[in-house]
Amino acid sequence: MGNTTGQLFRVTTFGESHGPAIGCVIDGCPPGIALAAEEFAADLERRATGRTRHTSARRESDAVEILSGVYEGRTTGTPLALLVRNTDARSKDYERIARQFRPGHADYTYWQKYGIRDPRGGGRSSARETTMRVAAAVVAKKWLAERHGVRVRGHLAQIGAIAPAAHDWAAVEENPFFWPDPGQLAELEAYMDALRKSGDSVGARVTVVADGVPPGWGEPVYGKLDAELAAAMMSINAVKGVEIGDGFASVAQRGTEHRDGMGPDGFLSNHAGGILGGISSGQRLVVSVAFKPTSSLRLPGPGLDLDGNAVEVVTTGRHDPCVGIRATPICEAMLALVLIDQALRHRAQCGDVGEVAPRIAAAAPDGDEGHG
Amino acid sequence: MGNTTGQLFRVTTFGESHGPAIGCVIDGCPPGIALAAEEFAADLERRATGRTRHTSARRESDAVEILSGVYEGRTTGTPLALLVRNTDARSKDYERIARQFRPGHADYTYWQKYGIRDPRGGGRSSARETTMRVAAAVVAKKWLAERHGVRVRGHLAQIGAIAPAAHDWAAVEENPFFWPDPGQLAELEAYMDALRKSGDSVGARVTVVADGVPPGWGEPVYGKLDAELAAAMMSINAVKGVEIGDGFASVAQRGTEHRDGMGPDGFLSNHAGGILGGISSGQRLVVSVAFKPTSSLRLPGPGLDLDGNAVEVVTTGRHDPCVGIRATPICEAMLALVLIDQALRHRAQCGDVGEVAPRIAAAAPDGDEGHG
Amino acid sequence: MGNTTGQLFRVTTFGESHGPAIGCVIDGCPPGIALAAEEFAADLERRATGRTRHTSARRESDAVEILSGVYEGRTTGTPLALLVRNTDARSKDYERIARQFRPGHADYTYWQKYGIRDPRGGGRSSARETTMRVAAAVVAKKWLAERHGVRVRGHLAQIGAIAPAAHDWAAVEENPFFWPDPGQLAELEAYMDALRKSGDSVGARVTVVADGVPPGWGEPVYGKLDAELAAAMMSINAVKGVEIGDGFASVAQRGTEHRDGMGPDGFLSNHAGGILGGISSGQRLVVSVAFKPTSSLRLPGPGLDLDGNAVEVVTTGRHDPCVGIRATPICEAMLALVLIDQALRHRAQCGDVGEVAPRIAAAAPDGDEGHG
Amino acid sequence: MGNTTGQLFRVTTFGESHGPAIGCVIDGCPPGIALAAEEFAADLERRATGRTRHTSARRESDAVEILSGVYEGRTTGTPLALLVRNTDARSKDYERIARQFRPGHADYTYWQKYGIRDPRGGGRSSARETTMRVAAAVVAKKWLAERHGVRVRGHLAQIGAIAPAAHDWAAVEENPFFWPDPGQLAELEAYMDALRKSGDSVGARVTVVADGVPPGWGEPVYGKLDAELAAAMMSINAVKGVEIGDGFASVAQRGTEHRDGMGPDGFLSNHAGGILGGISSGQRLVVSVAFKPTSSLRLPGPGLDLDGNAVEVVTTGRHDPCVGIRATPICEAMLALVLIDQALRHRAQCGDVGEVAPRIAAAAPDGDEGHG
Repeated sequence: MGNTTGQLFRVTTFGESHGPAIGCVIDGCPPGIALAAEEFAADLERRATGRTRHTSARRESDAVEILSGVYEGRTTGTPLALLVRNTDARSKDYERIARQFRPGHADYTYWQKYGIRDPRGGGRSSARETTMRVAAAVVAKKWLAERHGVRVRGHLAQIGAIAPAAHDWAAVEENPFFWPDPGQLAELEAYMDALRKSGDSVGARVTVVADGVPPGWGEPVYGKLDAELAAAMMSINAVKGVEIGDGFASVAQRGTEHRDGMGPDGFLSNHAGGILGGISSGQRLVVSVAFKPTSSLRLPGPGLDLDGNAVEVVTTGRHDPCVGIRATPICEAMLALVLIDQALRHRAQCGDVGEVAPRIAAAAPDGDEGHG
Repeated sequence: MGNTTGQLFRVTTFGESHGPAIGCVIDGCPPGIALAAEEFAADLERRATGRTRHTSARRESDAVEILSGVYEGRTTGTPLALLVRNTDARSKDYERIARQFRPGHADYTYWQKYGIRDPRGGGRSSARETTMRVAAAVVAKKWLAERHGVRVRGHLAQIGAIAPAAHDWAAVEENPFFWPDPGQLAELEAYMDALRKSGDSVGARVTVVADGVPPGWGEPVYGKLDAELAAAMMSINAVKGVEIGDGFASVAQRGTEHRDGMGPDGFLSNHAGGILGGISSGQRLVVSVAFKPTSSLRLPGPGLDLDGNAVEVVTTGRHDPCVGIRATPICEAMLALVLIDQALRHRAQCGDVGEVAPRIAAAAPDGDEGHG
Repeated sequence: MGNTTGQLFRVTTFGESHGPAIGCVIDGCPPGIALAAEEFAADLERRATGRTRHTSARRESDAVEILSGVYEGRTTGTPLALLVRNTDARSKDYERIARQFRPGHADYTYWQKYGIRDPRGGGRSSARETTMRVAAAVVAKKWLAERHGVRVRGHLAQIGAIAPAAHDWAAVEENPFFWPDPGQLAELEAYMDALRKSGDSVGARVTVVADGVPPGWGEPVYGKLDAELAAAMMSINAVKGVEIGDGFASVAQRGTEHRDGMGPDGFLSNHAGGILGGISSGQRLVVSVAFKPTSSLRLPGPGLDLDGNAVEVVTTGRHDPCVGIRATPICEAMLALVLIDQALRHRAQCGDVGEVAPRIAAAAPDGDEGHG
Repeated sequence: MGNTTGQLFRVTTFGESHGPAIGCVIDGCPPGIALAAEEFAADLERRATGRTRHTSARRESDAVEILSGVYEGRTTGTPLALLVRNTDARSKDYERIARQFRPGHADYTYWQKYGIRDPRGGGRSSARETTMRVAAAVVAKKWLAERHGVRVRGHLAQIGAIAPAAHDWAAVEENPFFWPDPGQLAELEAYMDALRKSGDSVGARVTVVADGVPPGWGEPVYGKLDAELAAAMMSINAVKGVEIGDGFASVAQRGTEHRDGMGPDGFLSNHAGGILGGISSGQRLVVSVAFKPTSSLRLPGPGLDLDGNAVEVVTTGRHDPCVGIRATPICEAMLALVLIDQALRHRAQCGDVGEVAPRIAAAAPDGDEGHG
C-alpha cells in the first residue's frame, strides 16, 4: 500500500530524485542479523548509474548511513532506517520541463492526482527510488541465504530483439548488461552504441530466479506468492508485464505439456516456475519481467504544457537508453523482499507444522546450473 | 493478504469447493447503494460451469443470500455478507485422489504448507472460490458505473493458437467463449470439441478493459494501480502472466514508438494501457492475462501418493478443457475490485484536490468501439 | 480496522442484531487444531442472554455452523467461517424507534455517518455482534492453551458501588454474575432485582487475566501488547475505560512503589500488569475494563426524532440492566484474540531467537490463586 | 502495527534514544498543505526536556529536517520524511546498566523478545521516540484545523494526589506543567522540588480534548474511534490507563445519569465524551490518560544482571521526576493522528453521503470554554 511493501518485513521508502536524500525504514526485521553499512555497496553499485557509458551519466556515491535498528553490528528488531544523500542532482536540467507534461511519463498523472508535483528529475516517480529497494533487499537476501539457503539471481533475458543464445551464470556479473551469453557482448555493445547515438531507447526483459526456496511459502488466495511477485515486479518503474514460469507461452500449450510431472526422484519439469496454487513447490522460482523503452529522449515528442498547449518535448537530462539494463538487481531485490515477507508469514501461521513427507526434489535445471 | 483483497473495499472470501458453502464479507462498502439478491445472478451465470458443453458439467444454482449489510434495499456501510450454498458437490469423484498429488495442482503445496489439506474438489484451491469474486464485483461495478461512469468489460483474446481476426464488442456476450470475432465461432466450436474428445486441455488469454476511469487513481510507489492489477489477476487460479497495455511487446519497441504522445485534443495513442507512473491517465485501462491449460485431465500423468510412490494420475471429475473460457468475468471482477478500492483510497487522500487542468481526452480506441 | 481485528489471526465479523444471521471469518488460523462445532457452546452460553432473570430475555440458541476451514475435524489453515442464525429477533419491538434517536445510543452517529441505519435491535451496533468474538476466541483460547499453556480468565470486579470483598476463582463460574466473592451473592441478587424493578441500569467493571504468557509478546511501539489490548477492550460495546495493571491508581503512586522489583527468584510484585515497554514480561496479564450503564431503559429519556423534534424515548425491548454482567466472556475473548495474534507475530519476527537467559519467574499472585 | 500508526495517514517512526538520529515517514498525507521546517518548533519545544528544572536535563535542539514530500512549501502527497539528529546523547551514563535489567523498564522484555537490546538511554523504548509523534501531529493538527475547524488541546489533570481546583485554558500554556489552575502553581512547584530532592517520582493524569469534530468519524466495530484512541494513548511510554468521557466513573453511574439527552437545541450533557457506538457525535472528544511514575530513579531498586544475579539498580542518567508533565503534547499528538486518519477513512467510505439532517449542536462545555 502506498510507499510500503510487505506485510511483516515492511519496507517504506521515501525521497525524491533531486531532493536532499532518499531512504527507507524496514520494520519487522528479524533481530540478530549481522549488518554493516559497507554491505550495501556491492548491490547498490550493480544498480547504479554512471558506471558505464550504457547507463545514465548521473554518478551518485550511494553511501548508506544506518540511522537506527543496529546495535554493535547486529539488527535489534527495531526499525532499521537507511539514508542515502543525493549529491549529483542537477535540477537545472529539468527547469524547462517544470511546465511540461512529457509523453510517456508520470508528469501528467501526478499532476492530476495531487494537483502538485515535484518536477525535478521526475520527483518521486524517478527510478532513483529503486536504490532503496536494492538496499532493503540486501538485508532480505542475507537472511534468506543464512536461514534458508535461498539464492536469488537474475539476468537480462532480452534487449530489443536480441535474446541470449547461450546461458552462463558465471558471465552475468562480468559484463555491464547482466547478459548470460558472453559470445554476444560485442554485438550488444555495438547495438547499444548505435542506439545511444540515434537518441532513441529500447525495451528489455529481465529474468530473476530463486533457488532453495522450501515448499510452503505463499498465502492463498489473494496473498499468493505469485500474486505478490507480480505486484512487486509491476511496481518497478517502466515494467509492463510479469510472467511466472512459462508465462504467456502457457496460452498455446496443452495441459499434458504444461503440467509438471512428479516422480519418486522429484519433479520432472518446471513449467510452473516453482509455484502451484500460489504456494512455492520447492522448485526454482522463475519470474520474467518486461520493461518498456525509456520515454525520456532527446528526440522530440508531442507533449503538453500546463496551459494545455502542444509542445515539442526534448529531454536533455541524463538518461538510460535502456532502463532494463540496470533493472536486474532491482528485480532481484523485489523477489527477495517478497520471499522474506512470505517466509515470515509462513512461520507465523504454520510454525506448528513440522517436517512434512514426502518432500520432493526440484527438477534438474537446464544447462550447467540452468537458467530461468 | 491471505484471503482478503483490497485496502478499503475489503473482500474476504471463504469456502471450499465441496464444503457446505462459499461466501464473502465485503467491509468498507460505501453506504446507500441499491442492492438486491437478484442482481448477482447475471454475472454469476456468466462465470458458472455447466451452461455449455465447453465447461465443466458441475451445475450450481449459485443463489446468493445477503446475510447482512443491506437494509430496505440499500447498503448500510456495515459488512455486506454474501452466502452461496454448494449443492452439486460430488466428493466421491475425488476419493481416489485424496491420497494422491496430482501433477500441476496445489495438492502437494497445500500439503507441504499446512500439513493437512481438503482434497474434495481441490478444497480451497478450487476455482469455485472465484464465484465470490464475481459476486463482490457486482457491487463494485455498480458503484463504479453510477458514481464515475466507469465501464468494465472483457473478452477472450486467444485460445491455444487461435486469436480473433476481428473485434466486435457486441458479439462477446453472445457466445459461450466471450469471443469478439463472430466469424470464428464455428472454428472455435470445432476446436473445443476436438480438444474435449482428446482429453487434453489448452491455455487462453483474456483481455479486460475499463473505460471512463478518471486520471489520478493509483498510489505510488508500491500501491501502483498496475501493481495491484497484476496481483489481482495473478491471484486468479491458473494465471501465469499479466500485461498492462503493450506488455511484453514493449521489450522490442523503441521509445519513440512506445511513448504515447499528447496533444490539445488528447492522447495520440495508448501503448501504456491507461497507466503512467502507477496512476491512471484517463485513457482506457487495458490488462491482458495468460491462463495455463487445465491440469485436471483424464489423460494419465505422472504423480505421487502420500507415501512418495509414483502413481499414474487420472482425473475423472468434471473439469473445464480450457479454464480461460469462463475467466473473462473473473478478470473483470478483479479489475473492478481494484478500481473501487483505488477510487476510495484516492478520495481519502486527495479529496481536497479539486478539478485539475488541463484534463486530456483519451485516445480514440481502435475499431468500432475499439478493443483492448 | 473496520470489522476486522488482528493482523495475522484476522477475525472479521458480520451481521445485524435482527438480520438473518451473524457470523465471522477467521483468516490466518494455524492449521491442525482439532475443532468441532460443539466446542463453541460453552463460551457462547456464558455470554448469552436469557439464561437468568438478570440479563435480557432474548433467547438465542446460538448454534454455530462451521462453513469452511475444517476438514476431518481439524483446521486446515484456510478461512474458518462460522455462522449463527438469528432466531429470536423481534423487530416489531423496535418499529417505533425507527424514527427516533435514543439518548446514549449509536442511532444518531450511525445516521450521521452513513445516511442510513438499520434500526432493528440496534442493527450492527448491537452487542449481539460480540457473540462472534466469543466464538472466534474459542479457537484462540484452545491454541493458546495447547501450544503455550496460556490460561485466560475473568470476573466481574465491580457493579455500581459494590466490589468483591474476597476472591475465589472457583466461585466465578458458579454464579450468573461471574462474581468472585460467593459471600456477596445474596446482596447482588437483591441489588439487581431492585435495579430491574426501578427500570434503571448500572455500570460495571470487569477484570480479565492471562496466566502463562511467555515474555516477549508485543510489538513496540504502536503495536504494543497493552495498546492492542486497550483497543480490543474499548471496541466492546459500552466500554468507557481500560486499565493495565494498576491503571489509574498509578497516577498517585511513587516510582519506588510502582516499579516491580526483580530478584533471582523472580519478580517481586506486579503493578505493571505483566507488560513492560509494550512487551509481555512473563507475569500475569491484568486488564480491567469499565462498562457504562445500559442506555436502553423503559424510563423515558430526552431524545430526538428524524425531524429534529424532541421526543420522550422509552425503550420497551429486552435489555440487560447491567451489560457488564455478560461482559466477562467477551473481555476474555478479546484478550485471547490479541494474545494469539501477538504470539503469531512474535513467532514471525523473532522465531530465530532461541531461549534467552535469564528467564524470571512471575510474582506469586495474591490469595489462593490470586486475582487481577 | 509495529512502528507504524494509522491506516491511511500512516506514521512510521524510527530511531533510538542515543543513536545518530530519530525520524519518521508520513505516508498518505494529503497534498497541498503548506509546510515549513520551522512549523515543528513550537510543539517540539512544548514536549522537549531541559526547558525547566522539572524535566530531564537532556537538551536537544530538535531541529527538524524535511527530507522529502514537500515541494515549494507544500506537501506533494508523496512520503513526508522528517529527521532530527540526536546531539546531546550521553551514552556513558548508561554503560553501567548495559548488563542490568532495571526494575519497571523494558530492559528485560526487549532482551527476552529480541535476544539483543540497545541499552543506551533505553534505545527504542525511550520516550525520545515521542518527539516524532509530536512532529507528525503538527501536520495532522494543521489539516484538521484548516479543513474541519478541529482544535486539539490538553492539560495536566492530576499529579500525584493534586488535582486542579479551577479550569482556565488560557493558563495551561503559561506554566511548565500544562496546569489549568493558575492558583495552584506555587503548590505544584514546591511539590515537584520536594519530589526531585527525594529522588522519587510520581504519576500523573493528562486530559486531551478535541473541539469541532464533526459527527461520523470512526469505523465500527473494531476500528471504533474510541478503540483507536485507546490504542494510541496506551502506546505512549508509561501509560497505564485510558478513559473516554466519564471513563471508570461510569461503573458507579445509573443509566439515567450517564446517557446524554438530546433536544432540538442540541445535546444536554457529554458523559459519553463525544463518541457513541465508536463514532464521533459532534460533541467535544474527551480522553483521559494515566501515566505511571518514572521508574528511572537514583534511589536504588532491586534488579537483575545478565547472569541472573540480584543487583541494586541506581539510575544516574537525566530523567523526569514525572513523565506526565511533558506528556500533554504527546497525548494531543496521538489524538490528532487518530483523528486525521479516521477523517480520511470516513471520506473514503462515506464521501457519497451528503449533509445529513438533523445535525445536533454539542452540549455547552463547562466553565468559560469548558474543560474535559
